Amino acid sequence: MISIAVLGCGRIGRMHAANIAAHPRAELAGVFDVHGRAAAEVAEGLGVRRFASADEVFAASGVDAVLIATSTPTHVDFIERGVRAGKAVLCEKPIDLSLERVNALRQRIAGTSVPIMLGFVRRFDNGHGAARRALLDGEIGDLWQVVITSRDPGMAPAAYIEQSGGIFRDMTIHDLDLARFMLGEEVTTVTASGSRLVDPALMERCQDYDVVTVLLSTASGRQAVITNSRQASYGYDQRVELLGSKGMVISENALENLVSRHTADGTSIRARLPHFFIERYRQAFDTEIGLFVDAVENGTPVPVGFEDGRIALLLADACFRSVAEGRTIAVSELE
Amino acid sequence: MISIAVLGCGRIGRMHAANIAAHPRAELAGVFDVHGRAAAEVAEGLGVRRFASADEVFAASGVDAVLIATSTPTHVDFIERGVRAGKAVLCEKPIDLSLERVNALRQRIAGTSVPIMLGFVRRFDNGHGAARRALLDGEIGDLWQVVITSRDPGMAPAAYIEQSGGIFRDMTIHDLDLARFMLGEEVTTVTASGSRLVDPALMERCQDYDVVTVLLSTASGRQAVITNSRQASYGYDQRVELLGSKGMVISENALENLVSRHTADGTSIRARLPHFFIERYRQAFDTEIGLFVDAVENGTPVPVGFEDGRIALLLADACFRSVAEGRTIAVSELE
Amino acid sequence: MISIAVLGCGRIGRMHAANIAAHPRAELAGVFDVHGRAAAEVAEGLGVRRFASADEVFAASGVDAVLIATSTPTHVDFIERGVRAGKAVLCEKPIDLSLERVNALRQRIAGTSVPIMLGFVRRFDNGHGAARRALLDGEIGDLWQVVITSRDPGMAPAAYIEQSGGIFRDMTIHDLDLARFMLGEEVTTVTASGSRLVDPALMERCQDYDVVTVLLSTASGRQAVITNSRQASYGYDQRVELLGSKGMVISENALENLVSRHTADGTSIRARLPHFFIERYRQAFDTEIGLFVDAVENGTPVPVGFEDGRIALLLADACFRSVAEGRTIAVSELE
Amino acid sequence: MISIAVLGCGRIGRMHAANIAAHPRAELAGVFDVHGRAAAEVAEGLGVRRFASADEVFAASGVDAVLIATSTPTHVDFIERGVRAGKAVLCEKPIDLSLERVNALRQRIAGTSVPIMLGFVRRFDNGHGAARRALLDGEIGDLWQVVITSRDPGMAPAAYIEQSGGIFRDMTIHDLDLARFMLGEEVTTVTASGSRLVDPALMERCQDYDVVTVLLSTASGRQAVITNSRQASYGYDQRVELLGSKGMVISENALENLVSRHTADGTSIRARLPHFFIERYRQAFDTEIGLFVDAVENGTPVPVGFEDGRIALLLADACFRSVAEGRTIAVSELE
Repeated sequence: MISIAVLGCGRIGRMHAANIAAHPRAELAGVFDVHGRAAAEVAEGLGVRRFASADEVFAASGVDAVLIATSTPTHVDFIERGVRAGKAVLCEKPIDLSLERVNALRQRIAGTSVPIMLGFVRRFDNGHGAARRALLDGEIGDLWQVVITSRDPGMAPAAYIEQSGGIFRDMTIHDLDLARFMLGEEVTTVTASGSRLVDPALMERCQDYDVVTVLLSTASGRQAVITNSRQASYGYDQRVELLGSKGMVISENALENLVSRHTADGTSIRARLPHFFIERYRQAFDTEIGLFVDAVENGTPVPVGFEDGRIALLLADACFRSVAEGRTIAVSELE
Repeated sequence: MISIAVLGCGRIGRMHAANIAAHPRAELAGVFDVHGRAAAEVAEGLGVRRFASADEVFAASGVDAVLIATSTPTHVDFIERGVRAGKAVLCEKPIDLSLERVNALRQRIAGTSVPIMLGFVRRFDNGHGAARRALLDGEIGDLWQVVITSRDPGMAPAAYIEQSGGIFRDMTIHDLDLARFMLGEEVTTVTASGSRLVDPALMERCQDYDVVTVLLSTASGRQAVITNSRQASYGYDQRVELLGSKGMVISENALENLVSRHTADGTSIRARLPHFFIERYRQAFDTEIGLFVDAVENGTPVPVGFEDGRIALLLADACFRSVAEGRTIAVSELE
Repeated sequence: MISIAVLGCGRIGRMHAANIAAHPRAELAGVFDVHGRAAAEVAEGLGVRRFASADEVFAASGVDAVLIATSTPTHVDFIERGVRAGKAVLCEKPIDLSLERVNALRQRIAGTSVPIMLGFVRRFDNGHGAARRALLDGEIGDLWQVVITSRDPGMAPAAYIEQSGGIFRDMTIHDLDLARFMLGEEVTTVTASGSRLVDPALMERCQDYDVVTVLLSTASGRQAVITNSRQASYGYDQRVELLGSKGMVISENALENLVSRHTADGTSIRARLPHFFIERYRQAFDTEIGLFVDAVENGTPVPVGFEDGRIALLLADACFRSVAEGRTIAVSELE
Repeated sequence: MISIAVLGCGRIGRMHAANIAAHPRAELAGVFDVHGRAAAEVAEGLGVRRFASADEVFAASGVDAVLIATSTPTHVDFIERGVRAGKAVLCEKPIDLSLERVNALRQRIAGTSVPIMLGFVRRFDNGHGAARRALLDGEIGDLWQVVITSRDPGMAPAAYIEQSGGIFRDMTIHDLDLARFMLGEEVTTVTASGSRLVDPALMERCQDYDVVTVLLSTASGRQAVITNSRQASYGYDQRVELLGSKGMVISENALENLVSRHTADGTSIRARLPHFFIERYRQAFDTEIGLFVDAVENGTPVPVGFEDGRIALLLADACFRSVAEGRTIAVSELE
């Protein structure tokens, strides 16, 4: 039984807290949030301790691990404090918006044996996982192309966008990690196309993009494509396609119920896609907690670690630079 | 090269004539219809002879075989004349509306070596055929249940209905034959439910039904269900489902093109089902001609013969009796 | 907040207990089982009281309602005691295996204002519900045919089958209720076909059937078909199809994840159907508790009541009689 | 009735000849091929004249139009001779492998009123067409992203590859035209990734690629992605996806028959995709002839013209340059 404290009681922190509380091999040590009221609400709802400060969390002797779901600017500090306190860390992406700060942290914590896991939850989705397993099992032969479709149901609030670090670090970063996971090989070049189509005024103000396409390649010639949009009127679109020498496998969107209608107008299905990430990746978030507990309990490597988080950020930076300079970026330029 | 004359230049006769004309191993000897103008039109369009009478057809020395697509009351006579003239026969269903007359014909032509094939075209559909092949190949183990869905896009004209012999002899007869084909065993009991829902006034006048469900069983306990409707607003619905001890196989409806639309209202496909039997079973009608030619050329048994046509009619009669008497009919009662 | 005690801590009772414990507007008052150990385990796991006897439950002042998930022979007594104690009842199907006993109970509790709800959970499935809503909203016009496919993944243990009351009262009863729910009109005739194909020896010994097809009709001419099998190697098959004058709607099987594989062999999806009723109808079981709580809290009618349970049993009896006597049964014969 | 002569009796020429012969408003004037035997075979099979030389074709007074399906190096000359002879031209892609020669031809034929249509057949596919119509009808709002998947079932023979002009001019050119057709706006930048994965030795020898991904963008910020492979073990994969502000539409692959199999291993469909372009785009090739006839008969503009062929080639050249130089190419660089 691993005792985990949750830092951050926003939407995703609350979800994690509940998942940990319900997990048979984990225990929710308590929760913390700079907004005491948010923390109190979650603590009360789940019947656990509310930590008065982050200091209290890192000092607490009964806490084995921390899940960091606070705002991005706090991640670097909290990871470092977790490592210093010998508490395993499960940190939401991104590690930070600055690759420089992430690199500096890497140096400071080099050699630590404290597990640090990154919350790239899509790796744990049963559908995407089955697609990858098909690849690893040789079902589709050698991998040639990866096509990732990842579109949000609707534009996030302006306040969120403004502090998000931009679409590549906020949204595409998940797909960049998933592409690496599927490619089984490091990305060497990045070309991105970024447009302002959903909310041009907001994007102009933030110097951000809301519809982007990314083209990745590896040393052996594998290719990956990511298509992102901040808005997909038909719902949260999450698909992964792998083409190999012997076949293709697609992790398709799953509809919650399947009622087909057949009339003179044709066939239709009215069911929506699962609304957003908490609903869509419910199983994956559960699995994530279990894998973190496994790693902490057994001292085995985390399934996705600090370096994965750093590389995903580096690829996101490459995307921004590609759009800004209108050219293909060699990943080696950013190291 | 088999030379085939087509009797009857209605919708289905015209289609057969064109198929024969286009067939690499068949030759269209000519066409006949009591409506000279219809025959002339087809003969001219295809560049073949118009026979002035059925007598002329059966007397023609260059004609190897006849395809009978005339009105139902002429079938018995034309089959018999084909047999007498030593010309192979491919006859559209039903043989006749009267089981008595069919039984009498059976006696009169007993022992003939002239091939007589019945136009139960659905047996030759690639989809239904693949389902049956899966069964024969042991993919789904022992057969337990057959579910046939067969619904016409819209009610036929009153004039057609009036002389059709009723839904069971006109429409269900195809499904009764298909059920036998799939069951691989004779039907022993028949229960039918018949309703007047699409056009109650017409049905009342004709003492006919427009929505029917039929339940069949065999000696070994296999069960088959047929659901028919004279109207399916969404198109010509033709499905066959086979449940066995090891699995299920379904020959589903095929849409001509597959354009999926995804909006806030859900997912839809606007394509219609193929409109009606000529479009839906185009491949099967082609295959049918080829199999008939094979049988005639090689002297091999026809794939579906006179006795199949007789039994299908007998089962149709059992359906009518079941509805009329509100009870399950043992097929043995009608023999 | 309604306080509900659960009687019976078998598989389904445990599930209901957990659902009630997790429900925002319900409270789990405690659990009871004649096997004290089973009850203790559930009580401990959920942190609630273990009642020492059913008497204790019905006498408990804080208990507003009881959920009866004990073995079938106890249902009649427990319903009656619930009614006498003024505690609302949610009872698993069937009420009893004997229509006579059910009719007698009906007389004894006639006029009670205590809510009695039957656990016909499929009515609450989002998919089946959406199909029915499409019908009620006029999307498919007048209803003509209902086709219910309902097949269990594998044969239940012999011990279960032996005391189940037979397939029609144990398994088909759900579909009979669902057919009534969809038809919107009482069933007037029943024809059933019953076979011994999955486990002939066991079926012979129990005088039961394992593959059955049922044909129902109503006064207005609507038709319903139910196909059941105690074994479907491909999983728990649960589909409902409604044909109407303007179209068709199908509540299809939903796969949990959708990974399509495309190779030289064709396209495949390896995902299984949800294994069995607890997984397949998880949402429906949750909804059921909510609707029961609504009815108890607001004094509104239960969505499916004692009389629904009685009629479903009567139709199941009609099925048995139809197979035994090889004939169509008028429902009026059994009243 | 337009009289069309077919130049070139290879696989695609033969198909066109047969389509023209069968077309109600077109007449096959005859065929020509430098391989007299090939031409003779087609001429005999279809009962038409065999032209002894291209000169004879262009001089023939009864010939209204020519369909050019000869080898690519002859296209420029034949187009020019068609224009000089006042015979409408339907030319297979590409116009030529050299953009310079195409530009020169453009100058020489500038101002001609003779219709020149390019055989970009995919524009005429009912599925792709319905997707575009949905866009034009406003169903998916403003267009944001286009995703084209286009993969051949298997590597062409080495001899074909060697003289093909490379994958971008031979294969991708179809998708580049389709992307322009869907985007409704000119492409401004091109980035391509090219790999040698299917047959590395052959690709190395020809300095060609067999797995490529192309990223296109337009002035307004629309993005298009093309994924190509010379081999897709599962068949000829042809899909088009359009994302817009109000939804998404996908022209999916259509299977010829739809037999679903459900076993303990999951669900599968064994049907193959239509094998290759002649089967897959049969309807589109038919439609193409009809549209060409329309343009010639009515003097209306051709639906896809010389300039479309020129721009597609220019984009193909941009793809090659992008791979060679590892950078994004502005289309303006090539004009």
